[in-house]
Amino acid sequence: MTYDVAKIRADFPILAREVNGKPLVYLDNGASAQKPQVVIDTITRAYSMEYANVHRGLHYLSNLATENYEAVRGIIARFLGVKDEHEIVFTSGTTEGINLVAYGWAMPRMQAGDEIVLTVAEHHANIVPWHFLRERQGVVLKWVDVDANGDLDPQAVIDAIGPKTKLVAMSHMSNVLGTVFDVKPVIDAAHAQGVPVLVDGSQAAVHMPLNLDALGADFYAITGHKLYGPSGSGAMHIKAARMAEMRPFMGGGDMIREVHRDVVTWNDPPMKFEAGTPGIVQQIGLGAALNYMMGVGMENIAAHEARLTAYARERLAGLNWLTVQGNSAKKGAIFSFTLDGAAHAHDISTVLDKKGVAVRAGHHCAQPLMEHMGVTATCRASFAMYNTEAEVDALVDALELCHDLFA
Amino acid sequence: MTYDVAKIRADFPILAREVNGKPLVYLDNGASAQKPQVVIDTITRAYSMEYANVHRGLHYLSNLATENYEAVRGIIARFLGVKDEHEIVFTSGTTEGINLVAYGWAMPRMQAGDEIVLTVAEHHANIVPWHFLRERQGVVLKWVDVDANGDLDPQAVIDAIGPKTKLVAMSHMSNVLGTVFDVKPVIDAAHAQGVPVLVDGSQAAVHMPLNLDALGADFYAITGHKLYGPSGSGAMHIKAARMAEMRPFMGGGDMIREVHRDVVTWNDPPMKFEAGTPGIVQQIGLGAALNYMMGVGMENIAAHEARLTAYARERLAGLNWLTVQGNSAKKGAIFSFTLDGAAHAHDISTVLDKKGVAVRAGHHCAQPLMEHMGVTATCRASFAMYNTEAEVDALVDALELCHDLFA
Repeated sequence: MTYDVAKIRADFPILAREVNGKPLVYLDNGASAQKPQVVIDTITRAYSMEYANVHRGLHYLSNLATENYEAVRGIIARFLGVKDEHEIVFTSGTTEGINLVAYGWAMPRMQAGDEIVLTVAEHHANIVPWHFLRERQGVVLKWVDVDANGDLDPQAVIDAIGPKTKLVAMSHMSNVLGTVFDVKPVIDAAHAQGVPVLVDGSQAAVHMPLNLDALGADFYAITGHKLYGPSGSGAMHIKAARMAEMRPFMGGGDMIREVHRDVVTWNDPPMKFEAGTPGIVQQIGLGAALNYMMGVGMENIAAHEARLTAYARERLAGLNWLTVQGNSAKKGAIFSFTLDGAAHAHDISTVLDKKGVAVRAGHHCAQPLMEHMGVTATCRASFAMYNTEAEVDALVDALELCHDLFA
Repeated sequence: MTYDVAKIRADFPILAREVNGKPLVYLDNGASAQKPQVVIDTITRAYSMEYANVHRGLHYLSNLATENYEAVRGIIARFLGVKDEHEIVFTSGTTEGINLVAYGWAMPRMQAGDEIVLTVAEHHANIVPWHFLRERQGVVLKWVDVDANGDLDPQAVIDAIGPKTKLVAMSHMSNVLGTVFDVKPVIDAAHAQGVPVLVDGSQAAVHMPLNLDALGADFYAITGHKLYGPSGSGAMHIKAARMAEMRPFMGGGDMIREVHRDVVTWNDPPMKFEAGTPGIVQQIGLGAALNYMMGVGMENIAAHEARLTAYARERLAGLNWLTVQGNSAKKGAIFSFTLDGAAHAHDISTVLDKKGVAVRAGHHCAQPLMEHMGVTATCRASFAMYNTEAEVDALVDALELCHDLFA
């Protein structure tokens, strides 16, 4: 089957717009992806015709909204390759998901001196919750470095696991380097030592097919807004055995069984971890987004992005005044770079923007990695299923203009 | 100015639909309100033309999304009568807001034996987070009862404040009884004893004009989905002095200043309490909803609902086989009731649904209040700015049918 990128682009209304008088070249997908019309239409229908609060009602609209909302649990499970949809916890995104694990699983069971192993390439969402345990409980953070090529040796992570290690927390794909990390041997080795593993799949889930039951991570985070879904949507896959060990995180409606003045009892997982009126329509929209992705086919998306990555790698390599951070053979469609000489990443992104090319500049919520790489900020061009080789060319043209301006 | 309820109804597309072959009579507003077209259109525009992640980008769409998103902080401040918009923390709703206060303010400062005063009429969202402190830290919950009429004597709350009281947590309006509680004297008396007050405004903010600077509560929670805004939107007003006492709740991007391997520093409030990619489009939609409400005028909405309340009270009082819970003179447009005899609340709501009348049946996330009232479940008809006297009549007609069926 040929991959009809023009047809896909036509499904995303924002891609038809101009920015600063130029066609939009949206390469900020690592920060957040654009939404297909089917997601927007699903949201509109939900609010215009099918809206009510979920779970607690018995009237028609409440039942309908509950059906639409709860159906998404199964869609997410299918998307992730998880057989038991009760292992899917709805969240507002990866940040809430990882904080749920930090507060609900890690905090009650970790003592001073216990260790958490994490990589230097983590996003702040997979760092700051563990800093809370360090600050508040004396937990020790053990960092594993990536090499100069942006590769992570899984054995280095395995070697960092010791008798005091209580958790390994690592990304499946770096949001800065684009490297896909080989998490499977880490998970297997950690499990052999009785250590659970949390994987931040915020980027990986966007770019490759997943089979989490085969992968075996205890906790796996995804975030809807990067998956072509609404802001404020997301999920955490948590193995049933880990769920059984967790106390609740947020307290409120839905997560309880009974509330009295002097005692409270909890609902069964996953509801135990879903307090209050949830992001009803956001999750319904996420279901539409994942169905859209599965309709295109994750294998097809991955193949298209592999072609884009190869092309971008070749074109960017031709700019001998440009330094790309991370050149792993396992690099996905994310390119962070600096221009040799004086130009600051922020200035570069501003010039690119004038040409309609949207990239991100800054530390990408990965300051330990930036420190490790010896830079304070980079530009990042991150690609999605709807990007084209012509857009790679537009990026390169705009970068050449930057070079002319700032060299 | 006359209140043109037909014009307002025309702004809410779902109100034109039928349910079970009857025109929808939506009286489940206490659970969640319907959305005006302007909110739906705002969401559509945000995703179709103006979407990117906020705060961290420098390109056109990111700047535009950030402007649209951050403008909502000022809209919420204006809606709440708060002068300093930096006292507004974005949340996904009241549940997250109150948990933020429980985890960020209360947990680090309360010891075993410290007391939290709360009323028996609280929603689970304003109970369960305090049960966490009871279970985990030995904090004592002191409950203040409502009387048989559904009234709360503010002096009873004040009398419950003792030398060990560290917080008063109370609703501004009961989601079951409809009673508007007189929180101002409680706040003043608590402050005279150095005790902060948290007010759950989830219902009150929907039905009356607020001036939180004059009211003086330390923490005030609102939830967007009840305010005609998107699911997953909301805010917490927190006085600057209390913010300064708080540690962060969730960890991730945006809420940090710097992240290193061994140290982390925080962003200034309110960003310190807003971790990760937020509910961008939900909050933008909430801004549209609050602007819509302010356009109609909160005084006008309150006056319309006062007329509806008076009419519903009179009509329901005419049904001598119906018991309404709570008959306070300060009752707003929320009616919980049971039918004398055998009919269960769930059966009643099912019959009403056949007539197109959507009400809620159950414990309304207020089990301690239900216990206090000696019931396990009630039906609840809760009114909004778009409801009419004709819909009160439709409710009464359907209730009479229930009476015929079950008597």
